Amino acid sequence: MTKFNIQNARFAQRVKDSFERQGFMLHLGAQIESIEPGLVEIRVPFQRHLSQQHGFFHGGLIGTIADNAGGYAAFTLMAVSDSVLTVEYKLNIMAPAHGEMLIARGRVLRPGRSVTVSQSDIFVLRDGTEKLCATMLGTFMTMVDSPDQPVS
Amino acid sequence: MTKFNIQNARFAQRVKDSFERQGFMLHLGAQIESIEPGLVEIRVPFQRHLSQQHGFFHGGLIGTIADNAGGYAAFTLMAVSDSVLTVEYKLNIMAPAHGEMLIARGRVLRPGRSVTVSQSDIFVLRDGTEKLCATMLGTFMTMVDSPDQPVS
Amino acid sequence: MTKFNIQNARFAQRVKDSFERQGFMLHLGAQIESIEPGLVEIRVPFQRHLSQQHGFFHGGLIGTIADNAGGYAAFTLMAVSDSVLTVEYKLNIMAPAHGEMLIARGRVLRPGRSVTVSQSDIFVLRDGTEKLCATMLGTFMTMVDSPDQPVS
Amino acid sequence: MTKFNIQNARFAQRVKDSFERQGFMLHLGAQIESIEPGLVEIRVPFQRHLSQQHGFFHGGLIGTIADNAGGYAAFTLMAVSDSVLTVEYKLNIMAPAHGEMLIARGRVLRPGRSVTVSQSDIFVLRDGTEKLCATMLGTFMTMVDSPDQPVS
Repeated sequence: MTKFNIQNARFAQRVKDSFERQGFMLHLGAQIESIEPGLVEIRVPFQRHLSQQHGFFHGGLIGTIADNAGGYAAFTLMAVSDSVLTVEYKLNIMAPAHGEMLIARGRVLRPGRSVTVSQSDIFVLRDGTEKLCATMLGTFMTMVDSPDQPVS
Repeated sequence: MTKFNIQNARFAQRVKDSFERQGFMLHLGAQIESIEPGLVEIRVPFQRHLSQQHGFFHGGLIGTIADNAGGYAAFTLMAVSDSVLTVEYKLNIMAPAHGEMLIARGRVLRPGRSVTVSQSDIFVLRDGTEKLCATMLGTFMTMVDSPDQPVS
Repeated sequence: MTKFNIQNARFAQRVKDSFERQGFMLHLGAQIESIEPGLVEIRVPFQRHLSQQHGFFHGGLIGTIADNAGGYAAFTLMAVSDSVLTVEYKLNIMAPAHGEMLIARGRVLRPGRSVTVSQSDIFVLRDGTEKLCATMLGTFMTMVDSPDQPVS
Repeated sequence: MTKFNIQNARFAQRVKDSFERQGFMLHLGAQIESIEPGLVEIRVPFQRHLSQQHGFFHGGLIGTIADNAGGYAAFTLMAVSDSVLTVEYKLNIMAPAHGEMLIARGRVLRPGRSVTVSQSDIFVLRDGTEKLCATMLGTFMTMVDSPDQPVS
């Protein structure tokens, strides 16, 4: 298991603050449930307007929280003067997301000064059982000396 | 340029019908603007609740319409008894999506009996000028004898 | 941990036979070291002609054995009448592959009738220590009733 | 069409020099055929030891030259003090590579100070006709003040 260096003791608060500035995430009903060094969990309760044509969670929502969980996992390891940017990600959808809650767990595979690689596993919770429905592998850039802050 | 075989003359109507069954796409204000064999364009006007932390279009929205444009481009070439499923996609985000309208243009690179490869380019329209902000390369499966229809 | 269904008791022999028909793998000095249900390990000892411009293992070699380890991991779960085809893969290179031996460990994340998702981790062995240098996430298709056999 | 800024007038020579330091590329018989700003073409004539189990060009070779063509396309736009590093790539294999010559054409989609996105199309030449057999979308990093030079 990799041990991660923490550059900013208030990393959890910074992730929360950044998350809350994202109109889209709030609008979707997404919540950050857990923030550890190199690990972030995001949850979204099902609502009808989050569905695709079969009534399950939409793939776009899966990608959205997969990307966010991986990106914020990377952000937990960054300095207070930095922010995080998604360079790219790849998502494999492995099963229909049929359930009451969508859960993305992002973790850092390899932190780097300029580029961090994260993976997110996405589960759907149905009748108390979690099922893996997708996985994401992504690349996130450190925006040095460009802190994540409110747009004035 | 590849010429595509059309298996279903009413492909445009089928794409529209499927699109309208997606609660998530309607909720985002997404619209299908153009449907040709192997080509689909989706547009989303900016709204505040579609933003990320800097006030631009959210990356999750970019991925969502990129995936949909590529998947529906594949769907235009399928038989009436088939439906389309996203296997995976990769998205490179190349510039901030700062503008009034987000536009995804999906096109089929290579149709196949069971697997179709599509690419989508995503542009942001600002003050009348389009700027490329992302590209997606994805794999879509034909669900044979499993028509896309309303969930009863 | 997922339990996998075995459809072919001689899966290990089939993987070996297929591997040995690949001129390219033999030419690179690649060896299959371990074959379990849903798990395959491939190793390549360093040779000067496998290097990139800095004298480390070439990225092309990393991708080659990552793809093969993931594809053969999928193949272990297929029926005797089927063969395996790489649809696509994504490779993140995370550290220089500087060492005596390159090792790819492929594992099935989610088996499927027509499509299987595998991940491979690639390590470089140097002075007795393994270091993670890349990871691959890929999609592999089952070619039904198309057995993997010598080209006559 | 994007116009690219050239930071180094001798970009073609630099690409050639770097290419020739790669033992693996020479060993495969790969040749650089064309080097323009943001565009690189690599060719490999068929040899039996480059084959997969059906006697076609091996997928590992496809990935290798796809990655190289995309990376060197990025390298043509970099300053003389910089070198190029593959961060990640995704490869979709769309048809068997059955023919006499494998050709990868890499082009820059979006150059950047620290990260460049390139795409490569891979064709197989058979009886005088080119067929698209794969496409690659990749991310390449500029290693600033780290020139590509012989290992002393």
